[in-house]
Amino acid sequence: MDKTTAGLKNLLEVAGGKRETELYIDGGTLVNVFTGELYQANVAVEQGKIAYVGDSRSMVGTNTKVIDASGYYLCPGFIEPHTHPWLVCNPVKMVEAALPLGNTAFVCDSLFLFAYLGAEGLLNLINALADLPAELFWVARIMHQSPVPEEQEYFSLENLDLVFSHPRVIKVGEITRWPRLFAGDESILAKMDLARVRRLGFEGHTAGCSYDRLNALVASGLESCHEAITVDEVIQRLRLGLWTMLRHSSLRPDLPTLLKAVTEKKVQTGRLMFTTDGSIPNFLRRSGFIGGMMKLAVAEGLDPVTAIQMATINPAAYLGLEQKLGGIAPGWQADLLLLPDLQNFKPHLVLTKGQIAAIDGKICAPLPGPDWGQLGLRTQLPPLELVSDPSLYGIKAHETTVFPVIELVSAAITKLRETPINVSDGFLAAAGDLLHCSLVNRHGRWVTNGFLTGFGKMDGLATNFATSNDLLVLGRDRNAMARAAAEVVQMGGGIVIIHEGKILFKMRLEYGLMNGCSFDQTADQTEELDRAAAVSGYPFNDVLYTLLFMVCDFLPGFRITARGIYDVKTRQVLAPVTLL
Amino acid sequence: MDKTTAGLKNLLEVAGGKRETELYIDGGTLVNVFTGELYQANVAVEQGKIAYVGDSRSMVGTNTKVIDASGYYLCPGFIEPHTHPWLVCNPVKMVEAALPLGNTAFVCDSLFLFAYLGAEGLLNLINALADLPAELFWVARIMHQSPVPEEQEYFSLENLDLVFSHPRVIKVGEITRWPRLFAGDESILAKMDLARVRRLGFEGHTAGCSYDRLNALVASGLESCHEAITVDEVIQRLRLGLWTMLRHSSLRPDLPTLLKAVTEKKVQTGRLMFTTDGSIPNFLRRSGFIGGMMKLAVAEGLDPVTAIQMATINPAAYLGLEQKLGGIAPGWQADLLLLPDLQNFKPHLVLTKGQIAAIDGKICAPLPGPDWGQLGLRTQLPPLELVSDPSLYGIKAHETTVFPVIELVSAAITKLRETPINVSDGFLAAAGDLLHCSLVNRHGRWVTNGFLTGFGKMDGLATNFATSNDLLVLGRDRNAMARAAAEVVQMGGGIVIIHEGKILFKMRLEYGLMNGCSFDQTADQTEELDRAAAVSGYPFNDVLYTLLFMVCDFLPGFRITARGIYDVKTRQVLAPVTLL
Repeated sequence: MDKTTAGLKNLLEVAGGKRETELYIDGGTLVNVFTGELYQANVAVEQGKIAYVGDSRSMVGTNTKVIDASGYYLCPGFIEPHTHPWLVCNPVKMVEAALPLGNTAFVCDSLFLFAYLGAEGLLNLINALADLPAELFWVARIMHQSPVPEEQEYFSLENLDLVFSHPRVIKVGEITRWPRLFAGDESILAKMDLARVRRLGFEGHTAGCSYDRLNALVASGLESCHEAITVDEVIQRLRLGLWTMLRHSSLRPDLPTLLKAVTEKKVQTGRLMFTTDGSIPNFLRRSGFIGGMMKLAVAEGLDPVTAIQMATINPAAYLGLEQKLGGIAPGWQADLLLLPDLQNFKPHLVLTKGQIAAIDGKICAPLPGPDWGQLGLRTQLPPLELVSDPSLYGIKAHETTVFPVIELVSAAITKLRETPINVSDGFLAAAGDLLHCSLVNRHGRWVTNGFLTGFGKMDGLATNFATSNDLLVLGRDRNAMARAAAEVVQMGGGIVIIHEGKILFKMRLEYGLMNGCSFDQTADQTEELDRAAAVSGYPFNDVLYTLLFMVCDFLPGFRITARGIYDVKTRQVLAPVTLL
Repeated sequence: MDKTTAGLKNLLEVAGGKRETELYIDGGTLVNVFTGELYQANVAVEQGKIAYVGDSRSMVGTNTKVIDASGYYLCPGFIEPHTHPWLVCNPVKMVEAALPLGNTAFVCDSLFLFAYLGAEGLLNLINALADLPAELFWVARIMHQSPVPEEQEYFSLENLDLVFSHPRVIKVGEITRWPRLFAGDESILAKMDLARVRRLGFEGHTAGCSYDRLNALVASGLESCHEAITVDEVIQRLRLGLWTMLRHSSLRPDLPTLLKAVTEKKVQTGRLMFTTDGSIPNFLRRSGFIGGMMKLAVAEGLDPVTAIQMATINPAAYLGLEQKLGGIAPGWQADLLLLPDLQNFKPHLVLTKGQIAAIDGKICAPLPGPDWGQLGLRTQLPPLELVSDPSLYGIKAHETTVFPVIELVSAAITKLRETPINVSDGFLAAAGDLLHCSLVNRHGRWVTNGFLTGFGKMDGLATNFATSNDLLVLGRDRNAMARAAAEVVQMGGGIVIIHEGKILFKMRLEYGLMNGCSFDQTADQTEELDRAAAVSGYPFNDVLYTLLFMVCDFLPGFRITARGIYDVKTRQVLAPVTLL
């Protein structure tokens, strides 16, 4: 008799009342996500799984631990179906913060980790995170967020096949550069074919896509989208059969709007989910992960049981994780919450894999993870002497010139302003809120110089917090830019803002987009960053995302990239890169 | 560019309006099973798939076939999630009859075919049926319905693995002998382990199972059940996370009762489905397959869109067939119905795989299938000289004896009556409605003799229509029994009733439980059989099922088996088999 069979026999015996159960949860009110009912039921737990749900006590023995759940609702753990657990905080710290709030499973984007670690390194990391008290599943990207020279090699079919074959990789991650897919790019279609052979479906990212174009993307195999930003977009996605995530993130806190698809337009909710997407830690601390979205949704008029279904069985069904996660039934994993009410969704107790993982907001399970310093995640940065030279930044010229200036119109959206720029010291000159903006290749091989407006009035800002993993340097003052860049390189990665001659803000990011700090420390730091950005004139709600996305070609508008200043829509290079 | 990629590119181009579509369905009212909405939308179809759903006509060209759907509802094809397509009629004839009524996909039990053909033969047959205009998927059994000596060999892990690995095998079929599973039978658990490795889930058959025991069966991995016969049983199954099929079959026409779980108890419907299970052809002709159930359900107060969801997207979700079947969305298979109304659910037009398959109730697609005579399905029967001898039947005795008589209390349920039986000519004597009842091994190796009451007053009835594939012979008159048995053997299988000295009914079943006739001929024959059974005193609603189940040990009660007269509950042999 092998281990699986033996485990199943034990479970059958507990369920059948022939064996003492390890744990018995007594007297709670079950939230039944299958029928939508609330009723009193006890739950027996054995070897990490639910063995029994009902009134029988025949499996309660002298060695059974009994938890008194009277006065509490029994609810499946919340599932976050789409997160990027490497935005400032690392995945272990995210679990430490989110698990006590009831988030017991996460579907994690692997992009940044894959880009740093390669296929084998990523899989080693996935394995190293597999024993966390929360379940981390992963999506595999098939292309980079923005084009990088290494793309062909990194996202080769061989590398992808390695990643696709890992049991914790359960979908292909958001296909951000959807216009290429819409155009029928054969290399994308070939990668999608391979994923189908490995039984993986496809997460979409159809931001800004018209209804008619959306048809084509859905026809190609996309199953979900988290990019709806209006009620109409929610309904369009649902109508076309997409599993639709309502997003409430630091960049796009849209839940109150999106929810009107249900509360006003009355669409059915079986294919709706919640996601915090890639939110910045201070936002998450304030908003409270998935449970916080549920609280907000119920306050906006959503039925509480529907909110629970949107956070449990719906994502489980979408993800192919039914029979394992998202419901309280025999044989399903014992990821359970004891909730005092169905308004706040803050658990008194969190059980994962049948063990008590958190009580009253405090984690009480070990959090085994990798040694982050040993993983090969160290931030890659250009040489100090290169970035310390102010002449690296700015555009040389002899007379006033019309230059394509990127203008920020929201935290993520840009437009172009062709404007004459004066010359000073042989360079086109920053002035007012017209900033120099440079992207320095992390290996020091090239630099793209341009101009940015609408971002603020800082003297200098430098960071490796950018989807291409290169060093982004902004500012009114090329000397301050060089100083900020040098500071970032010297501390091994991070973000530095110099304003009115002083270092206004400084945060270390020693592992690419991540630091090694606790969630709370990180939330404190990002809170402070928000303040510093505001002080130095940044007018929007998410400075980290503005920086991250400044280099992206998957968002419409104008971006600073390895090719130069780039118009995403027309695919034109407006001002070229300089090779070093 | 391989074929899949090329096909996908075409689809993308049609969806994007860059290529003429093959077929355009214009002006219909879409039944959106994702949102629950009804609204006007056109559908473009390319290479068997839906390419576009919406208002755009940019893919309509001079070579596009346009179907005017104005005045019709556009609805996904109906899915039958649990059928036994070898009960009198063969699968091709079933498709011929059911497809024009909107049934475009069937999940077929393979038991009888597997028992006759073995693993490789079954897979050849599955392949031979793969080009039908309807989709036939299959479930693989892991044990016989009733125990047979060949079981170990037939259901070996090697044979099962062969079957499990076929892409059209999508679940393990109903585990009928659930008490063995409840008891933790390791050979069953090992087979279930293998199925899990092959990514197959498990269809339950938890007839008569208490709520507490049901917990254990669900813990073992069962995902569905179609055996609820009361509202409470429906709710119990849903509450435990089982996908629950509401059954309306010739044996158990229970839909009006079961539906009260929704119409009165208001449970949510996302995990409910319809099934006709293994209905006899005349019942199916009268009731109208899944569409007929929907009509009945709506007449009983179910919302029509909910009825459609229960027949389309719900089974697709349960079966893991989303993105392919059960909804009208780009990339999904073009299995579509044009319905004149949402009361009768009788399609004007049936499209499958993008082709017109039926118009106004008449099939108009070719029905490619195997040569049934060449498959090795010929009915296995004991030797003529053996069954022609009246002394084979009945129990020899010298004086009045108390004997365990099987008493039918419904078409399928039996109890025991220990009753003194008189002796005549050295045999215990039939009298009134006390009938001899014998099961003769199909290879002539053994016979079990007993008595039956509550079945009727026929002189003799013989048939191979029994789950064990042996010859069942009943009657008041041992000579008439021998004559009926001889008739069955001489015609190569079937059913014969002799009543008042004459052959009252005769039907050929040359392929085990199947004949080679059309669905209508078979429905005529089974209609006549019902009349003949009633004339000869049979008091229930489904004589074929009574015969089929008389030999089953998976239903509670008393049965006639290879071991003898058998008490299923206590596992006791009440009167032994005789080896020949």
